Amino acid sequence: MEAKEKLSIVCFSGDFDRAVAALTIATGAAATNREVTLFFTFWGLNIVKKRGGHRWTGRGILARFFNFLMGGRNNLPLSRLNFGGLSPKLMTGMMKAKNVATLEELFEAAKELGISFVACEMAMHILELKKEDLIDEVTEMIGVSTFLDRSRDAKIIFI
Amino acid sequence: MEAKEKLSIVCFSGDFDRAVAALTIATGAAATNREVTLFFTFWGLNIVKKRGGHRWTGRGILARFFNFLMGGRNNLPLSRLNFGGLSPKLMTGMMKAKNVATLEELFEAAKELGISFVACEMAMHILELKKEDLIDEVTEMIGVSTFLDRSRDAKIIFI
Amino acid sequence: MEAKEKLSIVCFSGDFDRAVAALTIATGAAATNREVTLFFTFWGLNIVKKRGGHRWTGRGILARFFNFLMGGRNNLPLSRLNFGGLSPKLMTGMMKAKNVATLEELFEAAKELGISFVACEMAMHILELKKEDLIDEVTEMIGVSTFLDRSRDAKIIFI
Repeated sequence: MEAKEKLSIVCFSGDFDRAVAALTIATGAAATNREVTLFFTFWGLNIVKKRGGHRWTGRGILARFFNFLMGGRNNLPLSRLNFGGLSPKLMTGMMKAKNVATLEELFEAAKELGISFVACEMAMHILELKKEDLIDEVTEMIGVSTFLDRSRDAKIIFI
Repeated sequence: MEAKEKLSIVCFSGDFDRAVAALTIATGAAATNREVTLFFTFWGLNIVKKRGGHRWTGRGILARFFNFLMGGRNNLPLSRLNFGGLSPKLMTGMMKAKNVATLEELFEAAKELGISFVACEMAMHILELKKEDLIDEVTEMIGVSTFLDRSRDAKIIFI
Repeated sequence: MEAKEKLSIVCFSGDFDRAVAALTIATGAAATNREVTLFFTFWGLNIVKKRGGHRWTGRGILARFFNFLMGGRNNLPLSRLNFGGLSPKLMTGMMKAKNVATLEELFEAAKELGISFVACEMAMHILELKKEDLIDEVTEMIGVSTFLDRSRDAKIIFI
């Protein structure tokens, strides 16, 4: 029996369009029997921050300020032509109209497909985020070396 | 006989500088006997949209609007310091002065080197683009899973 | 004896946060016994330009102009929320407060860990930069094909 193909994606960007790309590739890979790991770091942590009143996360004043500016899952910007957040909404509309999975639905699918969500320990530390600030899908905080060890037989994509 | 080395590039970005990087790596790889596939998705589709009067491509009003804003091959922006499109022109000038292949020439070379151009089915669908909206070099529209299948023995770079 | 695992990183971006990401992954990989190559190209050359009075590098007027605008190691911008350069300084402060290695310290570590620094020949040529314009850690200028040859058994990440 051949070993399962593996794919690891470093989700560095917090842009809406890049998040959609990461999740689309991830779910496409997992749906075709690949083992997928998503490693969220820096801006990418925005994608997995809990919704709701948690925008001012982080403990120190600087970290809180940064986290506030970075925003959260509900207001990921588009990497270009963001128009103050209007474009991601328009795009979600277009995706729905075309019956293409939205970011929300991609997360649901990722979970069902058993994709592994991990967060970068160091970025969490710098931004003073705790595991409870992230959505439950994120099961672990790991360092870069651990991520590389787990990705030994995997392709790694940086988004 | 050893199998040919393979390289797959996901061209997600529509920035002029990143397009040049993608094509430079692709042609450099193909010229040294590697099998190269370029997978154009999202903003990256701008790089392979037909020139000329096709800027308002897409059928629905939203898709047309987005495609208009995204622009086309003649007005790819620089990822930084774009200055309303002046910088890509300056850069092309610098490249010509240095006898370095311009984006146009890189495409010619890519074609001659047998690089495979494919477009992302889902992104085409969302943006309501049809195969005839893209340059002839793009021979196929495929899904993410097909792309991953074909890249099984390839390195994958996301640009 | 198994061959040493290899990692090659194309440092295309000159953004402060992406430079930190590249160096963090690189040092994390090298510290766990991997062979790491950093290939600096285009905006990424900013990360390895010498500090100090060298901002107006390049010989021709256009190249000098571009190099001036691109800036150097002391003023790498953040990819988002740069606020005229304030944010990278704040972030360096946060990194220091958390005892996380700053970009400067990451470079020191990279050097000690024997990470290989190479610069893209073509980008140097376009931007009219000479080897002496770069920090001493950069030992070679190589082409894309040479980089790919050296990365034959490596994972390649594009940042």
